[in-house]
Amino acid sequence: MPFLDELTNTAEQIDALLDRLMPLDTAPAKRVIDAMRYASIGQGKRLRPFLVCESAKLFDVEDTHALRTGAALECIHCYSLVHDDLPAMDNDELRRGKPTTHIAFDEAAAILAGDGLLTFAFEILAHPDTHPDPVVRSKLVSELAIASGPAGMVGGQMLDLEAEARESHDLDEIITLQGMKTGALFRFACESGALLAQAGDAERSALSVYADRVGLAFQIADDILDQESTPEQLGKQTQKDAEAGKATFIDLLGLDGAKKRAHALVDEACASLDAFGNRAGILREAALFIVERKN
Amino acid sequence: MPFLDELTNTAEQIDALLDRLMPLDTAPAKRVIDAMRYASIGQGKRLRPFLVCESAKLFDVEDTHALRTGAALECIHCYSLVHDDLPAMDNDELRRGKPTTHIAFDEAAAILAGDGLLTFAFEILAHPDTHPDPVVRSKLVSELAIASGPAGMVGGQMLDLEAEARESHDLDEIITLQGMKTGALFRFACESGALLAQAGDAERSALSVYADRVGLAFQIADDILDQESTPEQLGKQTQKDAEAGKATFIDLLGLDGAKKRAHALVDEACASLDAFGNRAGILREAALFIVERKN
Repeated sequence: MPFLDELTNTAEQIDALLDRLMPLDTAPAKRVIDAMRYASIGQGKRLRPFLVCESAKLFDVEDTHALRTGAALECIHCYSLVHDDLPAMDNDELRRGKPTTHIAFDEAAAILAGDGLLTFAFEILAHPDTHPDPVVRSKLVSELAIASGPAGMVGGQMLDLEAEARESHDLDEIITLQGMKTGALFRFACESGALLAQAGDAERSALSVYADRVGLAFQIADDILDQESTPEQLGKQTQKDAEAGKATFIDLLGLDGAKKRAHALVDEACASLDAFGNRAGILREAALFIVERKN
Repeated sequence: MPFLDELTNTAEQIDALLDRLMPLDTAPAKRVIDAMRYASIGQGKRLRPFLVCESAKLFDVEDTHALRTGAALECIHCYSLVHDDLPAMDNDELRRGKPTTHIAFDEAAAILAGDGLLTFAFEILAHPDTHPDPVVRSKLVSELAIASGPAGMVGGQMLDLEAEARESHDLDEIITLQGMKTGALFRFACESGALLAQAGDAERSALSVYADRVGLAFQIADDILDQESTPEQLGKQTQKDAEAGKATFIDLLGLDGAKKRAHALVDEACASLDAFGNRAGILREAALFIVERKN
């Protein structure tokens, strides 16, 4: 199947799964489920779940296990978007081409929907349908909590907000910040295939290097897109980071330097997969897609 | 040890554990850890962890396992207070006698600290130190996620906000709402002893009945305290619920009726523990404490 069809196919399966896992009819508190569904179903490239599924295929992990792990990770990603978009944080009104959750509902519902999605991610992972071996389930919970907590995504968002207040930034600082804010979930995505398969350290470590390079390339590509695209193309407001005084990779590397760096990272990412041979073909295409995407 | 000494002793152990689990020095994102610590350490009666520890003692569960489970539950409880206090939610400036987290820090830090505590709860539970058997760890994660998610605490908070907008309320509606918002965490607290010990259904079920009665009694007592106490006694603003148009048990039962109902629930809670005999003495004292406390 061509790469973009694979990507779309996984996105559709993730949507179908989230739709099934969050039924509206039987919920006692419909409004919060409604907001959780609004924030998570029917949108986005589902890049993180796609990386889960493709890393899982390297080890012949069952599709259901990979999809449930990907859905849990997507719940974390979506909750972080809902909370980051709040007026007290980045104050965004447009996301993926539609009103952000606090605009479509209200701030209280958006806070609670984010909390609900965050909580639900761990409910999904701990359920026996995600993996029959409780060692694997516990490990998935543990790794996702670390990746999305204060030493990972939440900590990265805090550093990002603090960085706005400072006048000068250096590259190491931004790489650390983005490694926590964005990179940690990419690492979980790519390593989770190895976790689900209880693969060896060497394989997990190779996927970790891939994830590290791809995560950074993703963020650099985001900064490039933010500079070169219109709000219509991206489905969200552009050039807000620069206006807010946040350091971008373009400030630090220049536009050409940023593009070169992103492609060098893709090369490193692909090289890290050598031991997997042809089986990792789609992960290599994914790395390239991440820096060449248009939204 | 007398009841109040036992309660204080557990609170001190929970504080010491949270202090150890959330070190500030080594954190890359210090501000969010600082806010998480502010919101969770050195305050509160630690009633939920106390119920975890006391239910665990019925089955001779190791202290460390019970304390870690209690600390995880307290992280969930504290995160919910931080988010509920936000301006978009209940808009409270005082909690446990000190400024709420978004006043002491700012709204963004409070949102992230809440997210961090919520995430950290599951990291604690999934760690092998909480229980050597991964079946138990997965079950704890699963049950806490359900109790604190959209079918539990988060859903209850959504219903509570929606109830403010309605003019009339009935008792069943408020009992359902409080059973989700407050009761679900009490149920987890009391059942977790049985989960940690992998006890039988009958024992878990007896603890579930106890928790159900105690949780409702707690909420009725809260409404009574809110009416009869000063802000100084409670360490938070009083009579906000009535002013906001939220239905309280006093509106529905009258002050005397509410007191009678609370004591009847304590009797039912105590009776549910008959099978545990004298071993459940402290849990019986806890039920009485919950309705007779002064803050």
